Amino acid sequence: MKAARIHKYGGPDEVKLDTNVPKPAVGDTQVLIKAATAGVNPVDVITISGNFIFKPPLPWIPGWDAAGVVEDVGAKVTRLKKGERVFCAGNVSGAFAQYVVAEEKQTGRLGPKLTFAEGSGLGVPYYTAFKAAMHAARVKAGESILIHGASGAVGMAAVQLCKAMGVHVLGTAGTDTGLTLVKDNGADLAFNHSEKRYEDKIMAATGGGGVDVILEMVGNVNLSRDLQLIAKKGRIVIIGGVGETKIDPGVFLFKMPVVTGVNLPNTSEAEWWEMTAAIEAGIRLGWVRPVVAKEYPLSQAAQALTDIMANRNNPGNLILNI
Amino acid sequence: MKAARIHKYGGPDEVKLDTNVPKPAVGDTQVLIKAATAGVNPVDVITISGNFIFKPPLPWIPGWDAAGVVEDVGAKVTRLKKGERVFCAGNVSGAFAQYVVAEEKQTGRLGPKLTFAEGSGLGVPYYTAFKAAMHAARVKAGESILIHGASGAVGMAAVQLCKAMGVHVLGTAGTDTGLTLVKDNGADLAFNHSEKRYEDKIMAATGGGGVDVILEMVGNVNLSRDLQLIAKKGRIVIIGGVGETKIDPGVFLFKMPVVTGVNLPNTSEAEWWEMTAAIEAGIRLGWVRPVVAKEYPLSQAAQALTDIMANRNNPGNLILNI
Repeated sequence: MKAARIHKYGGPDEVKLDTNVPKPAVGDTQVLIKAATAGVNPVDVITISGNFIFKPPLPWIPGWDAAGVVEDVGAKVTRLKKGERVFCAGNVSGAFAQYVVAEEKQTGRLGPKLTFAEGSGLGVPYYTAFKAAMHAARVKAGESILIHGASGAVGMAAVQLCKAMGVHVLGTAGTDTGLTLVKDNGADLAFNHSEKRYEDKIMAATGGGGVDVILEMVGNVNLSRDLQLIAKKGRIVIIGGVGETKIDPGVFLFKMPVVTGVNLPNTSEAEWWEMTAAIEAGIRLGWVRPVVAKEYPLSQAAQALTDIMANRNNPGNLILNI
Repeated sequence: MKAARIHKYGGPDEVKLDTNVPKPAVGDTQVLIKAATAGVNPVDVITISGNFIFKPPLPWIPGWDAAGVVEDVGAKVTRLKKGERVFCAGNVSGAFAQYVVAEEKQTGRLGPKLTFAEGSGLGVPYYTAFKAAMHAARVKAGESILIHGASGAVGMAAVQLCKAMGVHVLGTAGTDTGLTLVKDNGADLAFNHSEKRYEDKIMAATGGGGVDVILEMVGNVNLSRDLQLIAKKGRIVIIGGVGETKIDPGVFLFKMPVVTGVNLPNTSEAEWWEMTAAIEAGIRLGWVRPVVAKEYPLSQAAQALTDIMANRNNPGNLILNI
């Protein structure tokens, strides 16, 4: 089959199209997907560099997210059937390929509403948003949440999810286009984080009490400010942002906030099933509305990977057409 | 009655003995304690400075912790009876006095085993340790906990509590006397935090995986090191340490630890009842063994408050005899 893959660790340019790659075999608990599209995520670039917590064996086909039609199912697969339109969030064989093998727990029904391009934007963004808001922060209806970088793929998924759950959503973006997108996705309030002292406006919007939950994409820049903006006993979830920053631990004494973080590889069996069920339900209800920012042919996988790192605030997902 | 109190905010020297203070009245849910002893805690010094989250009205009788005999009970008091030997953890009228009014939920039975001097060392130290280890970290039997400053009053309480619960306890202290005390209190391992790279020994003792829980008394010094020592999905609870420090939020992505903090004033009704029941049970079982470091007459309250700030690693509690 056709696949884009690396033969050594390095930058996006190491990802090259191969045409003679063996079709992957499906295991008992897995499904084989004939893929139409694949999603491109920052984690793919980090993984092919060889510097991720998971160092892949070579040659390696990158890609967490795919969408297509079920071609075959393993003996222990109970929900999904051959011919169904599906998406996957993570997989066994790599998403930048014509055929993708994924665990059933990480594979959901796309239904009739979403295109394959939209479907391959579900995995990493929506599961990360769900894991951060629900598993890590346990945000509840009626609480307030501040979503930093709310116009990016994870941010938009988080806005949609939290609004669907009855949470009061404050989102930030750095441009007018981004701010419009944040509002269009349903945020109650949008703030421009390139304005000086925009945090004063956020604090004022909460009546001075701070926000109950913060999802933070750039922890190394914003953590100290987040500790000022967080409400008493609030929760801050770090989703991105590596590098040293200064904070005052005294804040933990006075407001008793919780700071934690998430990554998708560190997800339990039960959590995968729960997230797949929740995203499937969101597709049926209509609150899951992935935004496709740009589509590339599979042969331009290297370019897509370069673009995703050049602008982490892409307004939506970068997609490969297989 | 006799009481040591302040008439203006300031340092320990503002605490002066008055002999004509009105005896406090007992409310419906409260008990009146004829006090034999009072405990001295760092929070008392911070409160009389006027810079605490709670700014007391003047004149003010400091002191959270007392022990004595129940003199009277309010109409809605159900458990405690006149004549019982009790301790309190926080109170309404101030502990540096002959009579102390405390809420029943914050007052526990001393039983026949503990002296009044020991009893007035229960409140802030044991409740803080319980709140940090149980409510904030939710440490479980079989997990490992690193207790920084394990020879101080809160640290010793935490060592005793965690050992009683079946937790594997690693404690630190800065002197040989302190290390002996940590071991005597039941810690499985003791480390000298004044040794260079003592953290390597702690990491080695966990087989390289890190500790499940850390109780941190000096967050502004140790937080970055704690984030290295913490296990995947571990919990760090800040109990003390105000001031800026550098950390790398990337750790939250890779290990998904939780960092939070505690303070006693921010405690719910249910949590007070739970903690009082737990400490009472611990006294009956025998694992609650407060250590009295030094006793002072009430007239020397100012000296005791000075001493507690001069050496936060006092081996046990400083007590006032009323």
